[in-house]
Amino acid sequence: MKADLLITDCRLATMAESGEPYGAIEDAAVLIAGGRILWTGPRADLPPHQAARTDRLDGRWVTPGLIDCHTHLVFGGDRSGEFEQRLGGAAYEDIARAGGGIVSTMTATRAASEDALYAAALTRLAGLKASGVTTVEIKSGYGLDHDGELKMLRVARRLGAEAGVRVRTSYLGLHAVPPEHRADRAAYVNKAVDEILPAAHAEGLVDAVDAYCEPIAFSTDEVARLFDKARALGLPVKLHADQLSDGGGAALAARYNALSADHIEHTTEAGVQAMAQAGVVAVLLPGAYLMLRETTPPPVDLLRRHRVAMAVATDCNPGTSPVASMTAALNLACVQFRLTPEEALAGATRVAAKALGLADVGVIVPGMAADLAVWDIERPAELCYWLGKPLLHARYLAGVADR
Amino acid sequence: MKADLLITDCRLATMAESGEPYGAIEDAAVLIAGGRILWTGPRADLPPHQAARTDRLDGRWVTPGLIDCHTHLVFGGDRSGEFEQRLGGAAYEDIARAGGGIVSTMTATRAASEDALYAAALTRLAGLKASGVTTVEIKSGYGLDHDGELKMLRVARRLGAEAGVRVRTSYLGLHAVPPEHRADRAAYVNKAVDEILPAAHAEGLVDAVDAYCEPIAFSTDEVARLFDKARALGLPVKLHADQLSDGGGAALAARYNALSADHIEHTTEAGVQAMAQAGVVAVLLPGAYLMLRETTPPPVDLLRRHRVAMAVATDCNPGTSPVASMTAALNLACVQFRLTPEEALAGATRVAAKALGLADVGVIVPGMAADLAVWDIERPAELCYWLGKPLLHARYLAGVADR
Ligand SMILES: [Zn+2]
Ligand SMILES: [Zn+2]
Repeated sequence: MKADLLITDCRLATMAESGEPYGAIEDAAVLIAGGRILWTGPRADLPPHQAARTDRLDGRWVTPGLIDCHTHLVFGGDRSGEFEQRLGGAAYEDIARAGGGIVSTMTATRAASEDALYAAALTRLAGLKASGVTTVEIKSGYGLDHDGELKMLRVARRLGAEAGVRVRTSYLGLHAVPPEHRADRAAYVNKAVDEILPAAHAEGLVDAVDAYCEPIAFSTDEVARLFDKARALGLPVKLHADQLSDGGGAALAARYNALSADHIEHTTEAGVQAMAQAGVVAVLLPGAYLMLRETTPPPVDLLRRHRVAMAVATDCNPGTSPVASMTAALNLACVQFRLTPEEALAGATRVAAKALGLADVGVIVPGMAADLAVWDIERPAELCYWLGKPLLHARYLAGVADR
Repeated sequence: MKADLLITDCRLATMAESGEPYGAIEDAAVLIAGGRILWTGPRADLPPHQAARTDRLDGRWVTPGLIDCHTHLVFGGDRSGEFEQRLGGAAYEDIARAGGGIVSTMTATRAASEDALYAAALTRLAGLKASGVTTVEIKSGYGLDHDGELKMLRVARRLGAEAGVRVRTSYLGLHAVPPEHRADRAAYVNKAVDEILPAAHAEGLVDAVDAYCEPIAFSTDEVARLFDKARALGLPVKLHADQLSDGGGAALAARYNALSADHIEHTTEAGVQAMAQAGVVAVLLPGAYLMLRETTPPPVDLLRRHRVAMAVATDCNPGTSPVASMTAALNLACVQFRLTPEEALAGATRVAAKALGLADVGVIVPGMAADLAVWDIERPAELCYWLGKPLLHARYLAGVADR
């Protein structure tokens, strides 16, 4: 075999469903060619090969590069001032009346240049990359008009082109009703569905379509209108569902064969069953759960019982989850939701790939992209155990080490 | 004025009680000589000076170097395996019977060489330093015999000498009864009080004396014996108090004019009043609160009402708080305990210094050590708002930039 790179003297958590915990291979080797995994297995079984380069990892653990499958990474401003006001005793209503909440992020996002949005997103992305992320999903949803939404998606595409990470975009026009449409929300839904989404899609900016389905946001009927359009355009869908109440979001996601239903703290067993039947991934977002001080965790036991695959993501956003580390999300998923470390790590690799409809990342097996994270740990569970300890030794994106 | 260094083009959160939030000075300058702050104020008021060097900070915010005033940073092994077993459904009793819990850390710590303990502690310290820490308190308490306790304290001293951080040590011999003394706990208390503490003190290894006062650990009478000895040796005391139940720990700490009472989730108003009268600092440990999924937060409103100063620390330890980032602790203190960002940041600077009995760190005013943290933030509240975002631009220890 001719290879660009041989990685050796390492332990692999392949995350393939091999029967071994973490799909582990002790004393392993990986051959990489053309940015893809050519061969992997025990070092003793390494086939004859010529490798242009060899990286010896001193016995370190290697996992698939982590996949953060739910973020709002691109936004203007931040909401640390509002965070401070609320802790100082200000009521949410007063903050909202003063232009706070999501409207403040919308205003700052609309006002920001693409370059400014890109630079700000890079600072958050630095945290994700330092925690081993090689693929990140990025949503629109703070522009809430034609120009703002397309600008956000262009910035996301630019991150994918220039920032050392794979990016999948989601159009989240139905995130909130912008103030100029408060008196006529139907007009906004029409615009989001019939104008903005097709325009963004025509520019190649949309990998999936998302919405925020909640009494305080959009109804299942409004979301269904959007999802019908997505289907007509051939785009997969995903949904912010049942975060604050059971609004039938999971069932709606299932009806449209969504890639994922996200949050789902309040989803009932019927919703879980519908997800199971439709193969919808449950994306758990423990950062928002922590920051909102929620007390109803997602129905993890039901998800296990009905074999719904669980992903874990940061939900990085300025309002409810200012979290910019995937290992922090893993820790919170284990501590708060009682995921096992193996479930959590699968949720940040193999299952997260499924939540994004990606077939070539998330496990370390031949044919996959050579996206890898190399860790200074003694066992995979450490990735979920520590909070705030730097654990990453190096990342490979398509076989190229970039840190 | 002759100075080694002029730091300019920055915004200062001096954390001095100046009447301004965060003791802030916009467009400030700092003159440093001999590792100490010589002058600080608005740049416009800068006195005539000769500075050997000038660092321009492009408008960045500068805070005092953060102080983590409660850690168990030195230990052998870790407990990620046990973390995984518990999430997999193993009962705590079964894990303890199999040699898990604190005994496993004791065993690993006793077995480890000083070099191995030092190297392992450095990896945790890397997280603290990356989050702006310039002073860290480190406790013994996993040796639980003469050699083990002194070994831990020697490693802590070596970190202070070689690892780019100031270290304060606490002797925590009364952390747990070691297995070999289970049948005769009085003998262990005698040994800890009459032999190990004096020996450690004679070697110059002890800055303060700590104990774990809890029904599952040591009684107030046992702790009082230790504190009497500390007093006789001229050493200040601090106490793990009322974490899991109200055991009168805060009152005991007050009776001995302790530097701090730590945890105090279950302290009553009488205990808070006693702390207030004796000037005892309350050290809040939100990492342990998260990891143990506690539901009774420390009595923050009572502490405010009685004007007990509140510090915030990581409690970095392998069993109940595998947290190695001070900014993570700040975030958790605000989110879980509803501290304001200014309270939390004071708790990681000015008040943390008080909890360690240090008079020359924790605020940016003339005469203080020039320990500074420089941040890529737009306002101080961001230090508490973000979880997992890299925010540190540089650290100065005694006026020397080391990152
Ligand atoms: Zn979201
Ligand atoms: Zn402690």
